Amino acid sequence: MTDQTKDRRKVLITGAGGRIGTSLATQLHERYDFRLQARRDLEQPVTDDIAITDITDLEAMTAAMDGVDTVWHLAGDPRVPAPWEDVLQANIIGTYTVLEAARRAGVRRVVFASTNHVMGMYDINGDWPVNNGMPQRPDSYYGVSKAFGEDIGRFYYDKWGLEFIALRIGWFLKEPYKGPGYGRAMWLSPRDCAQAFTRATEAEVPFGVFYAISNNPDHPWDLTDAVVKLGYRPQDTWADFYPVEPGVPTPNVH
Amino acid sequence: MTDQTKDRRKVLITGAGGRIGTSLATQLHERYDFRLQARRDLEQPVTDDIAITDITDLEAMTAAMDGVDTVWHLAGDPRVPAPWEDVLQANIIGTYTVLEAARRAGVRRVVFASTNHVMGMYDINGDWPVNNGMPQRPDSYYGVSKAFGEDIGRFYYDKWGLEFIALRIGWFLKEPYKGPGYGRAMWLSPRDCAQAFTRATEAEVPFGVFYAISNNPDHPWDLTDAVVKLGYRPQDTWADFYPVEPGVPTPNVH
Repeated sequence: MTDQTKDRRKVLITGAGGRIGTSLATQLHERYDFRLQARRDLEQPVTDDIAITDITDLEAMTAAMDGVDTVWHLAGDPRVPAPWEDVLQANIIGTYTVLEAARRAGVRRVVFASTNHVMGMYDINGDWPVNNGMPQRPDSYYGVSKAFGEDIGRFYYDKWGLEFIALRIGWFLKEPYKGPGYGRAMWLSPRDCAQAFTRATEAEVPFGVFYAISNNPDHPWDLTDAVVKLGYRPQDTWADFYPVEPGVPTPNVH
Repeated sequence: MTDQTKDRRKVLITGAGGRIGTSLATQLHERYDFRLQARRDLEQPVTDDIAITDITDLEAMTAAMDGVDTVWHLAGDPRVPAPWEDVLQANIIGTYTVLEAARRAGVRRVVFASTNHVMGMYDINGDWPVNNGMPQRPDSYYGVSKAFGEDIGRFYYDKWGLEFIALRIGWFLKEPYKGPGYGRAMWLSPRDCAQAFTRATEAEVPFGVFYAISNNPDHPWDLTDAVVKLGYRPQDTWADFYPVEPGVPTPNVH
């Protein structure tokens, strides 16, 4: 038998104190050897390998990536209505810093927590279906900042071979939003989120942008490339909670 | 007869001291009523309506847009190998500032000087043809910063109705680069550049991203949408300077 401890990938989670980072670390700490980056002390961390740094501190972030195989870049301002100045610092300068640190530290791959809000104006207008090859159409400064993250990630892959997978994460909740509107169609369960990050880490695909949502019956976002290229097989659906009505179009209001 | 002076559109050129801004102002000052924004004093300006401001100063930029119909946003670091910190200030924060100032000042339309470098990795790899609906694939921090400009421009149009036309400007030179490589294929003559900005200002198209290059015989970038939607009809071509050889593919090295 191989030593599973030695063979486990070293994964740095940025923004490990957030909702998604906490959930991923809790679900997957037996599969990966985590290091947790956060701005301030973590409550009940799953490991004592912790880096308390500012996401925009290039030197500290480079040091935090020493020996790291994959970075899960979750740090950033998660508020859709966040003002420009906040997303500029946390999401734009922060994501540049993470990519540059990863390049300097020799990291193999960055998995980037993008968002459906990169394409949110299609959603607001009901311009569906949406697939990942369509032009970005953000609905907010937050969405603009995540579109930037996808673009600079592609540049780092094309230019320096730093592998980069962006996951356009839907609405991460323990249970699906009840509705009405497309809120529940974009549900991403904690279990499916963990699978998406696992597949984005392990699939032999060096670059890509993919939606990460659960197997909801009325979702208007194309998951086909995630199924084909990443091997993503979502196991949850809001249909386990609420009745499905065939013939009802996806509603275009939250 | 109408008073042509009164009917002329008020156009603010940002970065008016640069090569393209100077050329446009010189060629078109009888067609438009220009205001010229620059960081420092201009040499031989075509008008005395001048705003000396920093492009990242929101208050000063808003004041500079008082009464303006259209902004031609040329200001920014034009160097393809510019470091991150420089494009962050001049191109990313600068373009946000211009759009926000335009929104606050009630400007009708912004014409944005984008670049072929937004799609430059297709060019470096010879992944041709390229059209404007393909995902952005920048080749540099400069290209990333211009991709950001296109994305935040789309957001300002979608969200607030600020009209926005991005022109992916090729290689602006008085005469085409001799070659070898695709350098001359991306030539944009001063005359065609002036036409592209004129059409981007006057066409009844509230949003779009278009290539702006001359009518070069071997260019691999789709101009069809510029022809159809903007009415762009480039009048210059490197074929007026050098012999054309049918059967020779577009070379993919500068």
